[in-house]
Parts: sequence; C-alpha cells; structure tokens
Amino acid sequence: MAVYTEVTDDALAGFLEAYDIGRVVAFRGIAEGVENSNYSLRTTAGDFILTLYEKRVDPAELPWFLGLMEHLAAKSLPCPLPVRARDGRNLNPLAGRIAAITTFLPGIWPRRPTAAHCAPLGAALARLHVAGADYQAERVNALGPAGWRPLLERCGDSADRVEPGLGDALAASLDGILDQWPQSLPRGQIHADLFPDNVFFLDGAISGLIDFYFAATDFFAYDIAVCLNAWCFEADLSFNITKSHALLRGYQSVRPLGAKEGAALPVLSAGAAMRFLLTRLYDWINTPDGALVTRKDPMPYYRRLRFHTQTTSATDYGL
Amino acid sequence: MAVYTEVTDDALAGFLEAYDIGRVVAFRGIAEGVENSNYSLRTTAGDFILTLYEKRVDPAELPWFLGLMEHLAAKSLPCPLPVRARDGRNLNPLAGRIAAITTFLPGIWPRRPTAAHCAPLGAALARLHVAGADYQAERVNALGPAGWRPLLERCGDSADRVEPGLGDALAASLDGILDQWPQSLPRGQIHADLFPDNVFFLDGAISGLIDFYFAATDFFAYDIAVCLNAWCFEADLSFNITKSHALLRGYQSVRPLGAKEGAALPVLSAGAAMRFLLTRLYDWINTPDGALVTRKDPMPYYRRLRFHTQTTSATDYGL
Repeated sequence: MAVYTEVTDDALAGFLEAYDIGRVVAFRGIAEGVENSNYSLRTTAGDFILTLYEKRVDPAELPWFLGLMEHLAAKSLPCPLPVRARDGRNLNPLAGRIAAITTFLPGIWPRRPTAAHCAPLGAALARLHVAGADYQAERVNALGPAGWRPLLERCGDSADRVEPGLGDALAASLDGILDQWPQSLPRGQIHADLFPDNVFFLDGAISGLIDFYFAATDFFAYDIAVCLNAWCFEADLSFNITKSHALLRGYQSVRPLGAKEGAALPVLSAGAAMRFLLTRLYDWINTPDGALVTRKDPMPYYRRLRFHTQTTSATDYGL
Repeated sequence: MAVYTEVTDDALAGFLEAYDIGRVVAFRGIAEGVENSNYSLRTTAGDFILTLYEKRVDPAELPWFLGLMEHLAAKSLPCPLPVRARDGRNLNPLAGRIAAITTFLPGIWPRRPTAAHCAPLGAALARLHVAGADYQAERVNALGPAGWRPLLERCGDSADRVEPGLGDALAASLDGILDQWPQSLPRGQIHADLFPDNVFFLDGAISGLIDFYFAATDFFAYDIAVCLNAWCFEADLSFNITKSHALLRGYQSVRPLGAKEGAALPVLSAGAAMRFLLTRLYDWINTPDGALVTRKDPMPYYRRLRFHTQTTSATDYGL
C-alpha cells in the first residue's frame, strides 16, 4: 500500500496550475513503495509520478534528494527528473504534504532477479557513483554504522520476542562489525537502498533507478554490499555466487574496485545485512497490529548476516 | 492495497505472447480496488489494465462480467473493453490466477463528490441501464434482498460487539425492508456498486465506469438507490438533497422513472444501505487483526439506513 494521503481532483488541478505540464488526464494510486504516497499522473503533456512525502521523510532533506536526482538525470542516469514549477520550485505543498512531480520511467522491476539482471545492475550502480562524484553536497547516512547501535538499543528486549537470544547475538555481531569497519574507502553519493523494486528493466537493459530517499554520502563499496544482500540470495536464503560475480563484474566494467574496497566486502556486507535487519526489527516491534503497512520479516537478514560473518575475502563474492 | 498476486516479468511476457498488443513497456501495481489485483500495463501498442481475479470472484462468473463490459463498450458506454487474445479468449491464466486485460480509461475519480458530479453520474447510470437491456444473460444478484438475511445471520451475535443492540435493530429493520420490497419493477443489468471510486471524470464529463464485478440483473431503481447512498451523503452523514435531485434529474434525462419506481425509492434506498452495512459488518467481524485489507466501518451505513427509514416518498429525494 503506498497511498496514505488522498488528493482531491480540485486540489490536484490547483497544484498543477503552478506547472507547465498541461491538465490532468489520468491519476491513479501506485501500489508499490512503502514510505511515501505515489500516484501515476498523466497530463496533456505526458506521464509523470506525483509523490507526497509522508511523515518518515524530513522535509529539510528533500532538496538534497531532489538535487541529487536532478544531478544524476543531467548525466543521463535513468533516474526520475524532478519537474520544476514555473517559479523554479520542485517541491510544493499539496493536501497537507510536501509534494514533487518527477518524470515517468518505463520498465518493470524484476520480481525474480536472475544473474542476467545482476551485470547491468552492477554497471548502473557504478555509473551512479561516478555521476554523483561532483554533486558537492554531503548527506550523513543516518542508517550507516553510527546509527546501528542506537537502533539496536531502541529495540531493547523486544528482539528476543522475535527469536530468543536474538538481542545478545546481534549486539555481539554488531561489535565485531564496528571493530572491523574500514576507516576510509572511496566515498561519494550512494543510493543505499537499491533493491529489485527500485530498478526497472526493459528488454534486458536498465530503464530506471528510483526511490533515492535513503541516498547519502558514504563508501561506494557499501552500496555494492547493499546490492549483494538485496540481489544475490535465493528464496531459500542460500548465497548465489554467480549473481554476485556478475554484479561485481558489471560494476568493475565501469568503475574498478580498489584492493581495500574488495578486502572490505565481507564486513561491509555484514554491515548492510545488519542495517536492514535492524530497521526491519524495529518496524516489526513497533508496527501496531492491524496497521496497513506490510511488516517485513527481519529474520532473513539474520541469515544473510550469518553468511557474511563466515566469508573472509572478496573471493567469497566471486571477485 | 490492491496487489495480492505478484506477476514476474517472465510470466507477464509469456502471458502477452497470446495477445496482439505488442511488448511490455511499463507495469505498475495500482493501489485502488479491494477485490482483485490490478496493474497498469503499458505495451508498445498502448495502455491497458491487467486484472488478476482473486479468491472472492467465482471464475465461472467471469465470462458474464466480461461479456457485459464488452456489450456496454460496443454501445459506446465508457467502460473497460476486455481485450481478446489471438485465439479469441479474454480470460487466460497468469500467476496461478485467471486474468484479463482491459482498455485503459482516462480520468480521475472524485474524492469529494459535488452536486456537479451527480447529474452526469445519473445520466451515465441510465445509459448503462438502457445499453444493457439487450444483454440477454441473467445473473442473480447474490447481494440482493434474498442474500441479506443469511448475511445478517452469519454475523450473529458479533454485531453487538460493533454496537450494543445492533443485531436486533438490524433484524427488525431488515424485516420492514423485505416486507415492503417491490414485487416487480423495470429490471435489467445493473452495476450495483457505482461508488465514486468506480467513476472517472475528465473536464467535468464522465470518462470511465469501472469495476463491474458486482453487476447483476435486478431493478434499475435499486441501482439508483445504491448511488443515492454512495454519492448524496456528506462527510457528517447528512443527506444532500441537491445532489440527489441532480442525480435523479440526470438519470431521467436519459430514462424517465415510472411512478412505481419513484414510489419505491425509500425502501430501495434503505435496502441498498442495508446491503453495504451488512457486507461491511461481515468483513469487519471477519477481518483478522493485522490483515492488509482496509476494513470499512459499517456504522455510516447504519446512519444512512436510519435516514431512509424516515423518508416516505420520492419527494424526499428531490424527485
């Protein structure tokens, strides 16, 4: 469910008056996405996506996200281009929210990622990193390593309600990850959430990268680690090295990894598993029964975490 | 939330091979709708809606619904036209469900219906009734008066958990409605669920009537009564006679109501309120906590029901 805020036809028509994209032709809520309300919007000028930012997004951060998308789109990355109103603003109020219009991207996200998806994915991720290099603004990754211990502490004893002993196991695992975390690696703008539902494919090629609202300034290789977690495990949670090999090969076809980046893949991957485990755990514990939000089971990320804590080098990822 | 069944890109591509509508360009889940999974589908040939029928729909009834839509579309009613595959079938298996492709209709459904919407709505409803007259097949209205007492009995004592005394009040009210229910009135194909989210408007005119999966063969005036309930009450549940007057005037501009139909409006409207009250009550009681379906509060239909039991003639509806 990704429509939390209803927009009346009058409000929409009024909102569009500030833009040069014609009049409404069609307007439908989009089921995908969990953080914001998304509508597919057709006007007499073409197809767009209308996003209303919901309470989890800090309005003060929106200009950074939209600036990054504009920067990347200008470099021909297939990401949504925020549309500016006649007065130059790309963020405007609608139905009690801040809203933005972005361009529509064709394609389908792969419900069952295969190795054939992973090479173009890796290449697109590297292009994103290269294209973002001269976007000067910096955004701290609130869900990076510095945020994990506070997040675990906020879960408190409730972790053990999900699985007995989970709290202690995570605390120990987190200590190990933070001990080994690299002091420095090549860094810049990362997507930080490039899961399959944020990547559109058309005829085998990538046609869209969406949902930049977790993007931040952090290690490039950490972004790869997020993708290794998101794309390279099978439904039975076994790791598929053919996929990770394809992903890393695709990445390096655009931006070769340094030796330190390769060596850090095990701990970065464990950290990425920890990040999604912790946010899912927190949401699992704090989502009231009967809420309309789909809770995502945290335990598959515990399985991924245990895999990564057993790897020792980039070779284990097919590099 | 209206995506219960996920469709993989491979399955979709395979499904489309049976049709002459080109290849997939975009595919997004649609948030609206509660009974089935709906996707907006763009192909190289244009825009379509892909519907996967979920468990509440009896597959044996689908040919009737799709036949009605095809019949009405052929008479220029703006309803979705089912697209036939090369072999002539308009229902085909996909992802473990029966699925259909229909044409895309432009427009927006009115989040806040006004009197200005009600005249074109009434006229469109009458056109639907006239256009459906020579669709010979008959479908019993399972949610018509014969179904209400069994539905109330299945709610049992649980009604009183929603509001103390509700069960007895509904039983008494239902007796009164069934006693007064007309023996015969002009009848034919009715939509039976023409709520605002099933009616698209574009530039003040109706551009789409959708969701025919409650359609049935029943009194035309009962379909009007459904619309009086769905369109003519304000947010505070007061009845707006300006809206109902506009609705009835619009209807009669296409198909004048007979004296018996007008006289029956109070009981038909009470019956329509009872029908939505009972299905909502049943769902309210039987939806498990934590389910992803939005439960709709039945009580606003109890308020409507009480209004209709106090009306005495068509004059109370502005006829």
